Amino acid sequence: MTLEEAKAFLGADLERTVARMETLLRSDIPLLDGTNRSLLTHAGKLLRPVLSLLSAGACGPRNEDSIRFAAAVELLHNATLLHDDVVDGSAERRNLPTVMSLLGGPASVLIGDFWLVKCIDCLLGADRYSETVIRLFAKTLSDLAEGEILQLQKASSCDTGEEDYFRIIYCKTASLFETACRSAALSVSAPEAHIESLARYGSRLGLAFQIRDDMLDYGDGCAIGKPTGQDLREGKITLPLLCALSEVSAEENLAIRKRVARAVDDPAEAAAVQAFVRAHEGLARAAERRDALIREAVSFLEILPDSEEKSYLASLAHFVGARNN
Amino acid sequence: MTLEEAKAFLGADLERTVARMETLLRSDIPLLDGTNRSLLTHAGKLLRPVLSLLSAGACGPRNEDSIRFAAAVELLHNATLLHDDVVDGSAERRNLPTVMSLLGGPASVLIGDFWLVKCIDCLLGADRYSETVIRLFAKTLSDLAEGEILQLQKASSCDTGEEDYFRIIYCKTASLFETACRSAALSVSAPEAHIESLARYGSRLGLAFQIRDDMLDYGDGCAIGKPTGQDLREGKITLPLLCALSEVSAEENLAIRKRVARAVDDPAEAAAVQAFVRAHEGLARAAERRDALIREAVSFLEILPDSEEKSYLASLAHFVGARNN
Repeated sequence: MTLEEAKAFLGADLERTVARMETLLRSDIPLLDGTNRSLLTHAGKLLRPVLSLLSAGACGPRNEDSIRFAAAVELLHNATLLHDDVVDGSAERRNLPTVMSLLGGPASVLIGDFWLVKCIDCLLGADRYSETVIRLFAKTLSDLAEGEILQLQKASSCDTGEEDYFRIIYCKTASLFETACRSAALSVSAPEAHIESLARYGSRLGLAFQIRDDMLDYGDGCAIGKPTGQDLREGKITLPLLCALSEVSAEENLAIRKRVARAVDDPAEAAAVQAFVRAHEGLARAAERRDALIREAVSFLEILPDSEEKSYLASLAHFVGARNN
Repeated sequence: MTLEEAKAFLGADLERTVARMETLLRSDIPLLDGTNRSLLTHAGKLLRPVLSLLSAGACGPRNEDSIRFAAAVELLHNATLLHDDVVDGSAERRNLPTVMSLLGGPASVLIGDFWLVKCIDCLLGADRYSETVIRLFAKTLSDLAEGEILQLQKASSCDTGEEDYFRIIYCKTASLFETACRSAALSVSAPEAHIESLARYGSRLGLAFQIRDDMLDYGDGCAIGKPTGQDLREGKITLPLLCALSEVSAEENLAIRKRVARAVDDPAEAAAVQAFVRAHEGLARAAERRDALIREAVSFLEILPDSEEKSYLASLAHFVGARNN
């Protein structure tokens, strides 16, 4: 199964989710309105609202709040992308120039703030659980900011350990996947055990998704056409390197970390670190961790009654883990 | 009366407000925790929580929610300052280097996001009116973003009219003053008429406050030691210039606006625009508008029962309007 098939299966409900975002994002300020429309037109994969709508449907018939929470998830995701582009100085996203590169960092920050407000507005309109769900989203936004700040801090000291790494990727990616699944289950008043299982499915899937993304930076699955080595240039130590480092002595570990510090300015050092990762099968070891997380994610679906949505969620886990699109 | 006197009058309640912010802003990430502590140590004037606590007290005895909403107002204010510093490229604030200049734009954006979340967390804990007040704050955050975006858009076209100007300063300053006063009145379950009057007091005071700030940029009240001409360098057309422009022909108006467009790169053009404002008494005319707004703000207090808080609110309006500190 592909993401496109899941989107086709969700059909009208996914369209209603996007339409709700469009309504919320209207503004009488031309610069803002035009930018919002352009961002919606190039909306990306919509993976998070797809996860959200499938999770709701796996627990019961989707309702207005299911649509609402799915829209809020995508609004929050895009708000943080607008801020991340400033943080990372990204000139391109989804093969298009970013708001940052077109209108500057200031506009990207402010338009991100605007999308954040619209996320809150979207949640405030919920029929039920509005406060509970605002609390979930606030926790996730806090995680997103803390994860990025921890990553900034660690990038300057090159002392990221495995525990730091998993905290960072939970905060910056998995927390939102978890909130997407949990809020969706709440929207249809799922039993507590189903809510918790879906939340765990979401968090494991999010971790696997980020590991996959970090592996792509080491050239795994180049079909995506994404440039490699970007993380090293920013001093970021990710799982493939951590797996390779776990194979060597403390001395060599320290020596490689010093190379990472120099890799920020020196492509030769970056190349040496990449060769080290290859020599110690960092990618294969990271892939094992990713696959274990995907199996774990799928196992959390067992408790749910059989449904098309449940099958799609299981397939999506495998698709996301293996994504090279 | 001075702001310091109002702070002394509020005493323990103002201390509890700051203590609540401190508790909310703790983090186990050293970079984040250290920056938050430093920002709190140099907390600035605390004008907005002072307004909030006085407004609550003018309607009834302050309670836990009064403290909570006052803290949330200051959290939101600081969050937007962290983002504004990136938007404006500001290296200094309150005579200290900004987070932006010390840690870079990315950290300033992310730490701003963190303060925003803490503002929402703070409101979620309220005993009553939590959802109503979150809605107020979300509206204000939306205003803040829209105001800044409108200002960015207008700065590039140099066609700011008086209506645009008042919309911009309502959004970027007065909306938060209004929300501070309105949420404070809600915290003590004030009668509807008192809530509305205080909200209007807040919005008029906020407009006057921003006009005063914009006048300082034309060198009015240099005691503050603030550099002048910054707005013109950014293409921002504010009330002193609009007042001067209203005195001249359509041709001269257009010619001056063209000079503003060139003033971004050319100090001689900026000086010519400043001379034009002096020649047409732009500052004196802007001062009349500001004073009328302060009188209007004070008139909205009449409906409230007499109290020390009410007297402080009236004095504060005159103090804020005339501030050269």
